[in-house]
Amino acid sequence: MPVDPRFHPVTGPHSLAVLAEAAGARAVGDAGRLLHGVAPLRSAGAGEVSFVDGRRNLEALRASKAGAVVLAETSLAALPEGAVALVSATPQLAFARVAALFHPAPAVAAGIHPSAVLAPDAELGEGCEVGPYAVIGAGAVLGARCVVGAHAVIGPGCRFGDDCRILASASVSHCVAGHRVTLHPGARVGQEGFGFAPTPQGRFVTLPQLGRVLLGDEVEVGANACIDRGTLDDTVIGDGTRIDNLVQIGHNVVTGRGCVLVSQVGISGSTVLGDYVTAAGQAGLAGHLKVGSRARIGAQAGVLTDIPEGMDVTGTPAIPLRDSLRASIHLRNIGARGGKSALAPSGPQRPDKTD
Amino acid sequence: MPVDPRFHPVTGPHSLAVLAEAAGARAVGDAGRLLHGVAPLRSAGAGEVSFVDGRRNLEALRASKAGAVVLAETSLAALPEGAVALVSATPQLAFARVAALFHPAPAVAAGIHPSAVLAPDAELGEGCEVGPYAVIGAGAVLGARCVVGAHAVIGPGCRFGDDCRILASASVSHCVAGHRVTLHPGARVGQEGFGFAPTPQGRFVTLPQLGRVLLGDEVEVGANACIDRGTLDDTVIGDGTRIDNLVQIGHNVVTGRGCVLVSQVGISGSTVLGDYVTAAGQAGLAGHLKVGSRARIGAQAGVLTDIPEGMDVTGTPAIPLRDSLRASIHLRNIGARGGKSALAPSGPQRPDKTD
Amino acid sequence: MPVDPRFHPVTGPHSLAVLAEAAGARAVGDAGRLLHGVAPLRSAGAGEVSFVDGRRNLEALRASKAGAVVLAETSLAALPEGAVALVSATPQLAFARVAALFHPAPAVAAGIHPSAVLAPDAELGEGCEVGPYAVIGAGAVLGARCVVGAHAVIGPGCRFGDDCRILASASVSHCVAGHRVTLHPGARVGQEGFGFAPTPQGRFVTLPQLGRVLLGDEVEVGANACIDRGTLDDTVIGDGTRIDNLVQIGHNVVTGRGCVLVSQVGISGSTVLGDYVTAAGQAGLAGHLKVGSRARIGAQAGVLTDIPEGMDVTGTPAIPLRDSLRASIHLRNIGARGGKSALAPSGPQRPDKTD
Repeated sequence: MPVDPRFHPVTGPHSLAVLAEAAGARAVGDAGRLLHGVAPLRSAGAGEVSFVDGRRNLEALRASKAGAVVLAETSLAALPEGAVALVSATPQLAFARVAALFHPAPAVAAGIHPSAVLAPDAELGEGCEVGPYAVIGAGAVLGARCVVGAHAVIGPGCRFGDDCRILASASVSHCVAGHRVTLHPGARVGQEGFGFAPTPQGRFVTLPQLGRVLLGDEVEVGANACIDRGTLDDTVIGDGTRIDNLVQIGHNVVTGRGCVLVSQVGISGSTVLGDYVTAAGQAGLAGHLKVGSRARIGAQAGVLTDIPEGMDVTGTPAIPLRDSLRASIHLRNIGARGGKSALAPSGPQRPDKTD
Repeated sequence: MPVDPRFHPVTGPHSLAVLAEAAGARAVGDAGRLLHGVAPLRSAGAGEVSFVDGRRNLEALRASKAGAVVLAETSLAALPEGAVALVSATPQLAFARVAALFHPAPAVAAGIHPSAVLAPDAELGEGCEVGPYAVIGAGAVLGARCVVGAHAVIGPGCRFGDDCRILASASVSHCVAGHRVTLHPGARVGQEGFGFAPTPQGRFVTLPQLGRVLLGDEVEVGANACIDRGTLDDTVIGDGTRIDNLVQIGHNVVTGRGCVLVSQVGISGSTVLGDYVTAAGQAGLAGHLKVGSRARIGAQAGVLTDIPEGMDVTGTPAIPLRDSLRASIHLRNIGARGGKSALAPSGPQRPDKTD
Repeated sequence: MPVDPRFHPVTGPHSLAVLAEAAGARAVGDAGRLLHGVAPLRSAGAGEVSFVDGRRNLEALRASKAGAVVLAETSLAALPEGAVALVSATPQLAFARVAALFHPAPAVAAGIHPSAVLAPDAELGEGCEVGPYAVIGAGAVLGARCVVGAHAVIGPGCRFGDDCRILASASVSHCVAGHRVTLHPGARVGQEGFGFAPTPQGRFVTLPQLGRVLLGDEVEVGANACIDRGTLDDTVIGDGTRIDNLVQIGHNVVTGRGCVLVSQVGISGSTVLGDYVTAAGQAGLAGHLKVGSRARIGAQAGVLTDIPEGMDVTGTPAIPLRDSLRASIHLRNIGARGGKSALAPSGPQRPDKTD
């Protein structure tokens, strides 16, 4: 079905030539063909652009009624008669640019809602948008064109670079962030970590949590996800890392750049991730571990030991993927008593960056 | 102990006859007996109504001092001397109606708090209650008798039917909802999903998330639960589906009617559930799966493959319940080296709709 | 690196003698030495205080350049030349007191922000601090020196003792709490539990949730954690219990004192915990269980049966730790086909109270 313009205003129509330029793709067919929007391959019509990524969708491509399709060179032969194409080595990325042309992200509406509470010494860069009931604390500093959503709370002393978004009902304290950082609704960044010690009488005494949270450029923190500040040193999230909804990051965790932490992942305190580590949904990592760059942690895995660079692990306790598959087959066979299981065989789900 | 009237104002007293009518139950004993409230079976007194559901509670029933008990016909023989009864084929449901008569849900207090921020073109049906600091965006439409709690944020263009509740600190955007929908405190509905693609240089580019969230009639979304909007098509939650606290629903998930997703469940993007699917606490479902109607997914299960209609599955990767029990017994025996385990044998927990 | 004074203002400098008194420790070396702050052992300089806890850090101690170290008697021999020491039987606790002297918790800034909405009959004890846009409902009662953060919502009739903190964007209803209770940002306490019953036609009817949440003295509820009120009786959290971020506590759960529930733990309704039960990250407990005092539940465990006092359990279904280790080794060997696994052997993570 077409994109709902009530929520996503549309621009255009645009010619195939214009789309090709935006997408960094090569137009195949009538470059003057006008397109009116984007839609999924199976429901798109003659005025709409779709995309296909990978060989498994060629059947869907042949059956599609889309007027234009973004695709790789190798899929071109399957393009239906009458459709035009945008050929790209990276179809998903090219399609994203087409979609963004039809539906540009809402412009930052510079201005401060009269109900927002800004400390007298808070500094906002040019062109910031601050929504109803946002609260910005003493000495906080925001760069240019930042968006602060309704009810967002930015604590004293926090610093954000340019083009950041602190969305509705998010709260952040004790934080220094780079550029183009996004905190999604309800994200909690900078609060006290879970640090306390027992007295001999069995009471718990909180250990002062005197660190901060450092967020690199382009970090995104998902809805209702939580990142605790450090105890003495900082909790550090590297450039480009993406954290999904309901993730928990404990105090003094450090990640490299480009890590992907899917929803409901939990990382215990002081664990260090290299670059481009991915953890699939609901995985859990114990504390004080080292996970090497490009390691991939499977969904629901329980990581209790250091992981070398580039290794795939799964299960609890997490073991190398190949070994885990043998163990799963063993258990499956025991369960089905040598007969066929009622479910298709499967392997553990690799973490996907996107659907 | 009696219900605290400071939080739950009480009406009455009510006669057994009145309760029987409210409950759709048959009175047994003096229909004029006055009852003053509800209480659990083990602590109820002569003026209070309890209920018993199922055979395992007959001992508790015999020992109870409750003045009146809602129960099934088959339990009547165990009713203590001096107590009266309300006989029903569905005791829990009948008791719910009795409880609601003593403690009616707070009436909607029609009115808009002066601090609420309503866009000029927002439309509210008759009798809506809008609390302090609620924010309702441009073009949003609410039906009659909706409750919007303190600090709730309803984004531009959202539409809700009649008798909806968007409770304290919840936020919703890009959403079209039916009647009698409830978003519990801190629920996050309609935000961007976790969709991005890597560039050849290793940066992540967000894919525009141009869908919506559609919530059917009587859908409930738990406290701090998250539902992401779709990428192109919508994320769809079918009529009557109940989603517990801290659940994550990824973009483009589709559920049928009457699904039950217990707390901390996670469903990855584009997975489709039929009707009346139940997933017990902390279960996780991979993306792009199909789960047939009336399937039951055990607590902490990791579903990595399609599930046929009506099947019970558990474990990670999830396998049919019967097979999983054999595998668990195998592991338990290895663990206990043939001796008795120190814990009682158990089976995986079936998802309960309620306690 | 030194603690960032923009977020954590510092007092001092303080002499070793003063620190010894604050810490309840014995000074070793020049009692007049001035110290300026705290830092981790590996990065501290001559003006800073660190601590070392346990034998595994003696190498780090010898290499440290810290001016002063809090340590146990047994570590004293490894203290570098030129450093002074604070000797304590409980080094972590003593160091916490030193840290708190340098960085006292922010004083409560008594006063009510003009934008806060207080019901006319809400009662606040002396010296309370109420932040922007906080909402305090009819008949609510707060003790002395309570802190209510920006956008916090305290529902009608709630009662809190002295020195409580209800932090930014938290919401609480139907709750009676003791002294020194903390709700961290986004915590959700007192909302309706997940209680409903199916009608014969397949619709769900909510069961009135007529209980409350009772929080004992010094209870802490983590960021975005959720505690549902009881159905008839109450949900009860015992004195000193600490609940980490994103934890789910179902209706009618009862805990004893001093329990520790690490992040993303889920406890289903009506389960009862004794005193000093610890559950590590992402553990899940089924409903209607009894867990004995001092039981320890491993990370990601799935508890489906009662647990005796003092037992360590892990796995799903949770079994005694010792048995689980044998089963894990069995699976590991199958997976690695008798060869060496590519990962170091590990045992399941015991729940730590702190990092």
